[in-house]
Amino acid sequence: MAGNSFGQLFRITTFGESHGIAIGVIIDGCPAQLDIDIDFIQSELDKRKPGQSKITTQRKESDTVQILSGVFEGKSTGTPIALLIPNEDQRSKDYGHNVDVYRPSHADYVYDAKYGIRDHRGGGRSSARETAARVAAGAVAKLLLKQHGIEVFAHVTSVGKIDAPNLETNDLSALLQIREENIVRCADPATAHEMIEFIDAVRKDGDTVGGKISCIVKGCPAGLGEPVFDKLHADLGKAMLSINAVHGFEYGSGFAGSELLGSQHNDIPQPKAADSKVFQTRTNFAGGILGGISNGMDITFKVAFKPVATIMHNQQTINAAGEASEIKGKGRHDPCVVPRAVVIVEAMAALVLADQFLRNKVSIV
Amino acid sequence: MAGNSFGQLFRITTFGESHGIAIGVIIDGCPAQLDIDIDFIQSELDKRKPGQSKITTQRKESDTVQILSGVFEGKSTGTPIALLIPNEDQRSKDYGHNVDVYRPSHADYVYDAKYGIRDHRGGGRSSARETAARVAAGAVAKLLLKQHGIEVFAHVTSVGKIDAPNLETNDLSALLQIREENIVRCADPATAHEMIEFIDAVRKDGDTVGGKISCIVKGCPAGLGEPVFDKLHADLGKAMLSINAVHGFEYGSGFAGSELLGSQHNDIPQPKAADSKVFQTRTNFAGGILGGISNGMDITFKVAFKPVATIMHNQQTINAAGEASEIKGKGRHDPCVVPRAVVIVEAMAALVLADQFLRNKVSIV
Amino acid sequence: MAGNSFGQLFRITTFGESHGIAIGVIIDGCPAQLDIDIDFIQSELDKRKPGQSKITTQRKESDTVQILSGVFEGKSTGTPIALLIPNEDQRSKDYGHNVDVYRPSHADYVYDAKYGIRDHRGGGRSSARETAARVAAGAVAKLLLKQHGIEVFAHVTSVGKIDAPNLETNDLSALLQIREENIVRCADPATAHEMIEFIDAVRKDGDTVGGKISCIVKGCPAGLGEPVFDKLHADLGKAMLSINAVHGFEYGSGFAGSELLGSQHNDIPQPKAADSKVFQTRTNFAGGILGGISNGMDITFKVAFKPVATIMHNQQTINAAGEASEIKGKGRHDPCVVPRAVVIVEAMAALVLADQFLRNKVSIV
Amino acid sequence: MAGNSFGQLFRITTFGESHGIAIGVIIDGCPAQLDIDIDFIQSELDKRKPGQSKITTQRKESDTVQILSGVFEGKSTGTPIALLIPNEDQRSKDYGHNVDVYRPSHADYVYDAKYGIRDHRGGGRSSARETAARVAAGAVAKLLLKQHGIEVFAHVTSVGKIDAPNLETNDLSALLQIREENIVRCADPATAHEMIEFIDAVRKDGDTVGGKISCIVKGCPAGLGEPVFDKLHADLGKAMLSINAVHGFEYGSGFAGSELLGSQHNDIPQPKAADSKVFQTRTNFAGGILGGISNGMDITFKVAFKPVATIMHNQQTINAAGEASEIKGKGRHDPCVVPRAVVIVEAMAALVLADQFLRNKVSIV
Repeated sequence: MAGNSFGQLFRITTFGESHGIAIGVIIDGCPAQLDIDIDFIQSELDKRKPGQSKITTQRKESDTVQILSGVFEGKSTGTPIALLIPNEDQRSKDYGHNVDVYRPSHADYVYDAKYGIRDHRGGGRSSARETAARVAAGAVAKLLLKQHGIEVFAHVTSVGKIDAPNLETNDLSALLQIREENIVRCADPATAHEMIEFIDAVRKDGDTVGGKISCIVKGCPAGLGEPVFDKLHADLGKAMLSINAVHGFEYGSGFAGSELLGSQHNDIPQPKAADSKVFQTRTNFAGGILGGISNGMDITFKVAFKPVATIMHNQQTINAAGEASEIKGKGRHDPCVVPRAVVIVEAMAALVLADQFLRNKVSIV
Repeated sequence: MAGNSFGQLFRITTFGESHGIAIGVIIDGCPAQLDIDIDFIQSELDKRKPGQSKITTQRKESDTVQILSGVFEGKSTGTPIALLIPNEDQRSKDYGHNVDVYRPSHADYVYDAKYGIRDHRGGGRSSARETAARVAAGAVAKLLLKQHGIEVFAHVTSVGKIDAPNLETNDLSALLQIREENIVRCADPATAHEMIEFIDAVRKDGDTVGGKISCIVKGCPAGLGEPVFDKLHADLGKAMLSINAVHGFEYGSGFAGSELLGSQHNDIPQPKAADSKVFQTRTNFAGGILGGISNGMDITFKVAFKPVATIMHNQQTINAAGEASEIKGKGRHDPCVVPRAVVIVEAMAALVLADQFLRNKVSIV
Repeated sequence: MAGNSFGQLFRITTFGESHGIAIGVIIDGCPAQLDIDIDFIQSELDKRKPGQSKITTQRKESDTVQILSGVFEGKSTGTPIALLIPNEDQRSKDYGHNVDVYRPSHADYVYDAKYGIRDHRGGGRSSARETAARVAAGAVAKLLLKQHGIEVFAHVTSVGKIDAPNLETNDLSALLQIREENIVRCADPATAHEMIEFIDAVRKDGDTVGGKISCIVKGCPAGLGEPVFDKLHADLGKAMLSINAVHGFEYGSGFAGSELLGSQHNDIPQPKAADSKVFQTRTNFAGGILGGISNGMDITFKVAFKPVATIMHNQQTINAAGEASEIKGKGRHDPCVVPRAVVIVEAMAALVLADQFLRNKVSIV
Repeated sequence: MAGNSFGQLFRITTFGESHGIAIGVIIDGCPAQLDIDIDFIQSELDKRKPGQSKITTQRKESDTVQILSGVFEGKSTGTPIALLIPNEDQRSKDYGHNVDVYRPSHADYVYDAKYGIRDHRGGGRSSARETAARVAAGAVAKLLLKQHGIEVFAHVTSVGKIDAPNLETNDLSALLQIREENIVRCADPATAHEMIEFIDAVRKDGDTVGGKISCIVKGCPAGLGEPVFDKLHADLGKAMLSINAVHGFEYGSGFAGSELLGSQHNDIPQPKAADSKVFQTRTNFAGGILGGISNGMDITFKVAFKPVATIMHNQQTINAAGEASEIKGKGRHDPCVVPRAVVIVEAMAALVLADQFLRNKVSIV
């Protein structure tokens, strides 16, 4: 069973290679009568597209999305929504030198090991270009969530060892505005400035650097998540780990929480005000999720990205015959993936939430 | 769509509540002709069962497993394997006081919010007792993996802020032996001693503490993992995050890797010796997985567990009406979950690997 | 991927062999708060159980069902419902003579061909005994449907060449009562009498005979069924064809409809009465389903069962080595399967409808 | 959960509406290294395309297929294969008169009932145009099967009450050649002539007629099919019933078999010749399938199609408000669907067999 689908009720299947004709996605299970705002989908893609600033790859792709099916007079019809993004700048010749050489920390070798054949142009299917399809589908999921008052917001909170301070998160719109005012997509302007300087220096060295993205979900009702395996945080974790270059996921108190005592870590529920239906706890170490089910508090998680494997240095490696070889740093790549990955994290989170939102609709008879 | 199944080709479905008649699991997709060693399955359950030492809960359960179907004359037949574990010590009266009160950082509230009904006896379905079914199924997965030379080993590497040093991992059998010689299941005896002292002190305080478990997989061939969503580490991450109390997952370089430069983080492939078919890299920041596919190196990951929510302190909370309430510390619970969770981590890892092993069998025409 | 699960949202997994310890089923996805009437489940099983009349097998099984999980204080909790039916009369010695011989038109050979191992006792997993688990799960599905006013009724309409006349179907309760008054389960008493005489004669000859079951569903709202593959009649067809001995399925006008002209076959919609929300057509060749979606009219379909393969004659055959062999007619078997299969047909229909009912809940945003 | 995917390991997802921009299909799970012969795929589509003869609709579509992904240098790479078929002749104005009127025996009403919105142009998603995507995917499945010596052949055996005689089926290539020499696709030339005359007469009357297609699979090894629900014939049945206009499915002895005695119906296995590995029975009432698993004999089944609902007569009906209305016969439609459906039946059969072929690869450890 191949692995190019994600989600159960709000289910996507992506296709396409880095240097093929097009990439795209089918959404099967988007409920009917949802307003499909193609401009919004495009604006999300624009946040991921290459070439948007000096700290991203200079590959040129407009990433213009086309709706092939499933939308009629601006609304979803309940039939599969096919979204197509043609590849434009397929400068495959950049990759001719890699046909037979395994780039360090890339997937070249393992695709050969698994399939015995590999579209070597720009990483083929293993390229992060595939995530454009996720962003397009995630935009549709966001439209669904928005109808139900659920907001997803992510931003860059670490680049290398530079960490953003904890921010007040009551107003996600305000944070979004700040985030979009800087090219590294950190909602703290001072840290953003520092991050950009650092990435630019790394880029000039022909090197790359990793980072972390934090995500917060507001307005999620209690009840989302399906025990015992499809816990909300388990699905979020899988979604994030399926993004290229991700090496770690934690939610709520995360790794640090494992160092605490129960008496420190327990979130004490607060008595409800007379007119409130809301469950609230004094602290939120739970990250909005108990027993795998949302409790109505903010959902919080963090994602760690390794540094991009393509560097502009010469590196020793091997070829397909297993012989020593050398690879030269060429091509167009990102010095740091997190600024463009912010919208991918949001998209995958939105896909999980949309799916679990629909799944929860059949919980009670 | 409910979430009580895991895996695609080697697929399990668990059932049962903490204080019901029995818990159990159906394995659908275990290939035929596998030797099913019931003593091994039982020995795995014995490592998870309650009451095994002074630092685990004193609930008494023999956790005796029975095979109901799918095995004939000691071998799997290709039909569903049903494994049943009767509940014995269903001391539900311990929980009578919780019927209407939401225990802090437990799933009581969210089950009510989601289902509008809740088996309140001992956490019902949200109890970690369910993981016994996973351990039983995981034992069968281990038998399958063993036939193909794949070994899974986990041990406790942190309790609170006590961390084990990095260990030499060439000989997993030796580590397993050391691990089983101490009740905290850390493969470093000195650290184990320290951890046990600490947990015992925490227990005497009526408190609990979190910890971390590290896992290593040896002998995994290259090629396991299904891009782009069912990446090997994404499935491992989901599997781990689905275990009760887990708040974080990282593989290979993990969170720390996100602080590095690409030139530091890239794993340089080594030329193959004349007679070798093995892919090897100088370092293993990749944790044995590239692009979501195993590369033949050791697979390494780490899992963070929050402290157990049940503490022997009185705690403020609310009842189902949202009114202030107090909960008293009673019942029988673990001061630290990680010693018993080691075999659960291994079981879930084995289930992922068995599933991906079968899935990889159809990769090439 | 093994095939022991059925349904997407109301999903069952059955397990167990004819002469093993027990058979059973897990229902994952039954919504919470459904009243689970165990007496009803048992009464359904009683309609399928062996030994109930002179025209059924004399194997003795009480088929007593036990609920292991998922039900609390009489209601479903949203967690997996495990139903267990112990095997009692495992007279395996009856089958000792078949260890190495392939019974004509049984699954002995193909299980060996597929799995290389076979539980030969009484057909093992291929035995129709497995359908008891379906009936138990189907009873729960019926309870869900009943809450929403959906009724499922089947009865025997053919035995061999004896066909029942078309009946007035406005009152399913009345038909059910008539059906249960005769042992062949035909709702037309005169035909029932004739069928019973014929089956009894066939039985005395040591032979068996096939038959047909017709099913009608009343009260199904418009909208159930998921184009383009999971059409309501496609799921019904698969469900029926998965029952042992079924060789054919047709709905609405069926095979005969293929001989008609469009001008004869089209069902003309009737103008709605002022206060009606109901869609009605003059005829119902569609069998209540258009484009794979229920239209609110009665759903009708028919299922053809081959004669039972076990006959009390000596038959030529081969053994596992491919050599000529002879098999003697022994054991306890049904001369005609349709009287006991009526409730299996209903169960599978109920499972499909419950599943599609839940699936339809997420069709509109 | 929407229903636009089919298959488990060889899994397709189709998309597109009759009068949208394009229709298409993603194949996820096609094994790597399969030669993808695009000319063959196109030639299959040519057999289904409209306008190919006087007895098919005159809608003009070249149905030119384009491969968007998953194929590299002529071979499958193991990544999703996306096939796109642009719509060319989208003469939507033909359908303007149907916006608000429910065509008798079409899916107009039920799409409105289910989704509350409907792409009314030419049937939208409910149009049989969607089956072009199935034919394209089925062609790839045929390429996979061919590598393993499995052949699928279907032809028209009934139009209205005109039935073809039973044919000798040893040489499928010869039958295929005969079939393609007449426009009704019946492998018996004399019957074909009669059928064509009849369809032409029906067409001139502005009417339509139903028919039946028989299918035979040769070279299928024993072992395909997954008990107990995903039996080979159950999957075939669902596949066929999911095709537009299909009202019945039977395999082997089918409905007629239900009239026989066991002593007549049992297929007696033949002793194997010394050098043979083949299982053979004297008769083949089983249709090549026992207990849901292929036994190595020819697989045979038959599919019944109702007459096309669109006729060139004026018909009474209702509008969306439930009021009496009349619909005039306009547009371009087929007088009889079976000639074009032959390749659809083959495609769906091939998809089932390819899927079950892959599934069977993991049956034994």
